[in-house]
Amino acid sequence: IAELKPHFAPVIITSLLSQFSHMLHCMVLKITLSSIHINPCCYYPCQNSGVCVRFGLENYECDCTRTGFYGENCTVPEFWTWVHLMLKPSPSFSHYVLTHFQWFWALVNNSFLGDILMRLVLTVRSELIPSPPTYNTKYGYLNWESYHNISYYTRILPPIPEDCPLPMGTKGKPTLPDPNVLTERFFKRKTFRPDPQGTNVMFAFMAQHFTHQFFKTRSHVRGGFTKALGHGVDASNIYGDNLERQHLLRLHKDGKLKYQLVDDEVYPPTVSDVPVHMVYPEAFPPEQRLAIGHEFFGILPGLTMYATIWLREHNRVCDILKAEHPTWDDEQLFQTARLIIIGETVNIIIEEYVQQLSGYQMKLKFDPSLLFNARFQYSNRIALEFCHLYHWHPLMPDSFLIDGDEIPYSHFMYNTSLLMHYGVEKLVDAFSRQPAGQIGGGHNLHEVLLNVGEKVIIESRAARIQPFNEYRKKFNLKPYSSFSEFTDDPEMARGLEELYGDVDALEFYPGLLLEKTRSKAIFGESMVEIGAPFSLKGLMGNPICSPAYWKPSTFGGETGFNIIKTATLKKLVCLNTKWCPYVDFHVPRNEEEVRQRNPPTEL
Amino acid sequence: IAELKPHFAPVIITSLLSQFSHMLHCMVLKITLSSIHINPCCYYPCQNSGVCVRFGLENYECDCTRTGFYGENCTVPEFWTWVHLMLKPSPSFSHYVLTHFQWFWALVNNSFLGDILMRLVLTVRSELIPSPPTYNTKYGYLNWESYHNISYYTRILPPIPEDCPLPMGTKGKPTLPDPNVLTERFFKRKTFRPDPQGTNVMFAFMAQHFTHQFFKTRSHVRGGFTKALGHGVDASNIYGDNLERQHLLRLHKDGKLKYQLVDDEVYPPTVSDVPVHMVYPEAFPPEQRLAIGHEFFGILPGLTMYATIWLREHNRVCDILKAEHPTWDDEQLFQTARLIIIGETVNIIIEEYVQQLSGYQMKLKFDPSLLFNARFQYSNRIALEFCHLYHWHPLMPDSFLIDGDEIPYSHFMYNTSLLMHYGVEKLVDAFSRQPAGQIGGGHNLHEVLLNVGEKVIIESRAARIQPFNEYRKKFNLKPYSSFSEFTDDPEMARGLEELYGDVDALEFYPGLLLEKTRSKAIFGESMVEIGAPFSLKGLMGNPICSPAYWKPSTFGGETGFNIIKTATLKKLVCLNTKWCPYVDFHVPRNEEEVRQRNPPTEL
Repeated sequence: IAELKPHFAPVIITSLLSQFSHMLHCMVLKITLSSIHINPCCYYPCQNSGVCVRFGLENYECDCTRTGFYGENCTVPEFWTWVHLMLKPSPSFSHYVLTHFQWFWALVNNSFLGDILMRLVLTVRSELIPSPPTYNTKYGYLNWESYHNISYYTRILPPIPEDCPLPMGTKGKPTLPDPNVLTERFFKRKTFRPDPQGTNVMFAFMAQHFTHQFFKTRSHVRGGFTKALGHGVDASNIYGDNLERQHLLRLHKDGKLKYQLVDDEVYPPTVSDVPVHMVYPEAFPPEQRLAIGHEFFGILPGLTMYATIWLREHNRVCDILKAEHPTWDDEQLFQTARLIIIGETVNIIIEEYVQQLSGYQMKLKFDPSLLFNARFQYSNRIALEFCHLYHWHPLMPDSFLIDGDEIPYSHFMYNTSLLMHYGVEKLVDAFSRQPAGQIGGGHNLHEVLLNVGEKVIIESRAARIQPFNEYRKKFNLKPYSSFSEFTDDPEMARGLEELYGDVDALEFYPGLLLEKTRSKAIFGESMVEIGAPFSLKGLMGNPICSPAYWKPSTFGGETGFNIIKTATLKKLVCLNTKWCPYVDFHVPRNEEEVRQRNPPTEL
Repeated sequence: IAELKPHFAPVIITSLLSQFSHMLHCMVLKITLSSIHINPCCYYPCQNSGVCVRFGLENYECDCTRTGFYGENCTVPEFWTWVHLMLKPSPSFSHYVLTHFQWFWALVNNSFLGDILMRLVLTVRSELIPSPPTYNTKYGYLNWESYHNISYYTRILPPIPEDCPLPMGTKGKPTLPDPNVLTERFFKRKTFRPDPQGTNVMFAFMAQHFTHQFFKTRSHVRGGFTKALGHGVDASNIYGDNLERQHLLRLHKDGKLKYQLVDDEVYPPTVSDVPVHMVYPEAFPPEQRLAIGHEFFGILPGLTMYATIWLREHNRVCDILKAEHPTWDDEQLFQTARLIIIGETVNIIIEEYVQQLSGYQMKLKFDPSLLFNARFQYSNRIALEFCHLYHWHPLMPDSFLIDGDEIPYSHFMYNTSLLMHYGVEKLVDAFSRQPAGQIGGGHNLHEVLLNVGEKVIIESRAARIQPFNEYRKKFNLKPYSSFSEFTDDPEMARGLEELYGDVDALEFYPGLLLEKTRSKAIFGESMVEIGAPFSLKGLMGNPICSPAYWKPSTFGGETGFNIIKTATLKKLVCLNTKWCPYVDFHVPRNEEEVRQRNPPTEL
């Protein structure tokens, strides 16, 4: 026994120490919880969008003004709120109706009911977004600076207070899971899972090209700042996010943008001709670097392809305007063309891109006049939560299939020659035929993009973004009561339980990406119910949609106005190419579409 | 005869030359008018807010969308427009009703009708201001740059096209009158004419102090730029128009602003302590230069007096907030106090300042909830026309009467010691008792301020501001058909006719200042009908008036919210002074007020 003791002693001591340490930790927590006056707002006591204000040392008040609820924590519905809640269909019921009953929607879509329902969709969704904007990463309370300083992303919910006892407030583990563990265990793709809605790679690149005009996080500065001060659809991805870049990109003749001709085709110029900063690998020669509005768009041929298409479209619109307005100077032609390009973008995004994403049988309609009698603010501020939410990298396939060639990421990224080798037509055709990955449900993020998921998680912690369930509540969704309710995958539920300890401590972005998907849908309920309001508010909040702007003269007359009103993805591509490829945000639906190649297509 | 010839010949030749020159001028004009394709928009063909767009070389189209009119020049009313026009009372009728029938208004003011009428006033006025904003000095057409670049003042009407045959379009003389001649002949005060509405010097300094937070023309840069990027009531006159200045002015303790104590009274600090730029004469010693949010406010003791009052009020509010929220840091106390100060300002401006200015018997009410069900944009952009319009320098008296002393301008300007010598109480009392000058009607601008009037005229020409009559039309007023209709002063009518040649060529600012005044009113119809929309839109378009902001929690709870809702000029002064002087925007109305001196006044 004597001999054993020296061996056992350290083990026992270690064990005792470990127990003691745990006790100590709990005691410290208890002391923190009781005597050092926890900030009561760390408990997120105010429900139904009530605002928590701390009073004295340990008191708080919920401001329930205009929430439709009252009581200490804004939990008691007023009479009309109660009626409204009784009558309001659940999000899943509405979604079911909207995505089924094709015969019903065939009738509704082209009747006056279509307009009424579209107006309802727009108002119900956009009322969830406070406007003027509210919080930001520095300010968890309303103030002039966070209203006025547009270099911040706004925030829908204030940050988790700095002085909370636990990272996510008062629930969950004292340390959050390692982001690398999260992405490796739950995000990483095993085998490619195509989106069941039929979304294609053409859509994926549109998503990236479109959203990068308003998501430009200043990642080297902490505090949730953005470089995209337009806070919406301003076409800064085409024209640059500042005047200097815009003027470098402009031809200063007939309103046009500079371009180069390769094999008699128009492409973006190179930085040798247009000395703007573009992100390329260090050794990349200037004469191969393309000069584009967005400094980042040299990274993928899908982005340079869209840049090329929009460049051609801008110059095409300038020609049309100039023919009608020979007296207009370069500036007026440029500026009016820009407004038309913005209008085309919003139209294509609503009527084709969001339509595809929604899976709705209801036809979405871009018609700003629907909102002219509604209370609606024509202004927009991009939210950090929207930026995080939109990291849809699972869309990306394992490799790219173009004209019979399979191209891995290593040969795809920063490959300028690819675009000019195949030409816009073949790229559009290829991207439109190749399925994109399902975004939700987990296990579908390509290995080379895992770091993106990690980065979002790391950034969201620095920004102290509130738990997923708090966002569910903010957007009128029932918070999940357990991980097994949150996901149908028992292994994932167990794993998340183990890492987070409490479903109320689950983080925002993992919540959105790992939530069980709706039946045959691209992602889960939360992505739609939280994402759609940001999206529609941003699109319809554009000044061109306001009564003062939405008229022919704004776009140089009926011709320009009609270009916007009749814009389609197909016209965007085929009015700027030599032949019309298969072009859609959906993979081919029927055999004819699969077979078709170089058909003469009507516009 | 032979002897005479040499004498006469030159006279005849000169005369012939002069006639020839005139003929030549007319011919040149005719050529310009016919063959060089005049821009048809120079004729301002589009009525009722229709938008003129030039097509081809000599064609134009009026965009009548949502004007309620149709036809080539938007002159034919639609049916409901016609009905509306038939039923709509004229501005002068409405004004008469609003300024008379005290007994009627005594009944209405405190009933639900008061709210309905106030909502009507707010919506009818603010609907005249396009929001999102439209043109600016560079851009006579809608575009993204003029929407997005907030360093421009916006414009309600586009600039006069550059290529018009005459300075004001197609009417009037080929050269505009010398600004110096205009001010000397029509603006210059002969004898002081007090405002018949009883407005006092306290009001005049409030006007100056209040408006300089959003009128900060960058006069050294042409193109209609402003330094006041808040475009409304942001209290930048108190906190500075940029973050650096704000932080220099802040104490960084308990949310307060820095101050100095003189005779146990709080005053703004000097630039020795707070190194911010202040405009003072060159030799002025730093220890006498006061450091204030607005760099210009050292110029007049009336402005430094208001600066002192607001400084004290800010720090007083901070104390109140800190007592309720001991855990709040300096930043939250500062920011919340700032929102309360903004709220107090808007309340006092609407309920006392605009009330005084309007002369209405109807009680104006600051209640943002009146607009919660209206279509109203919570955003604002300051217009160059509003800035020009607000040059109300005829308010200024001949000299200043303080505590029995008469102080001429020469001893008043840049006199820092005056404020501390008399103290806030005596200055408030003096300024509240001294009548201000009538703004309209001409001949009432003090000689030392003539250059200000001149500057506005010169600036408005550089900015190519459209004729006065075009603004009358834009704001639903009948354009004047002659100078004798415009003014009751036959000499002025003759003089203006001689200088301008055509009433349709009369300029905007002279039009506003020289128009006949309404009976016993401070200025004419146009100043009210054009100015009020800008004013009310700016005040109610503040974010604090929006449903998302207008609730107790925004202002730290009910206490702060009530400070705003019950703010008055009297409380603003008397909660921050040792004794309560006579304080109002109106000279004393009755003998008691005239006699009263240092009375203990209830708040």
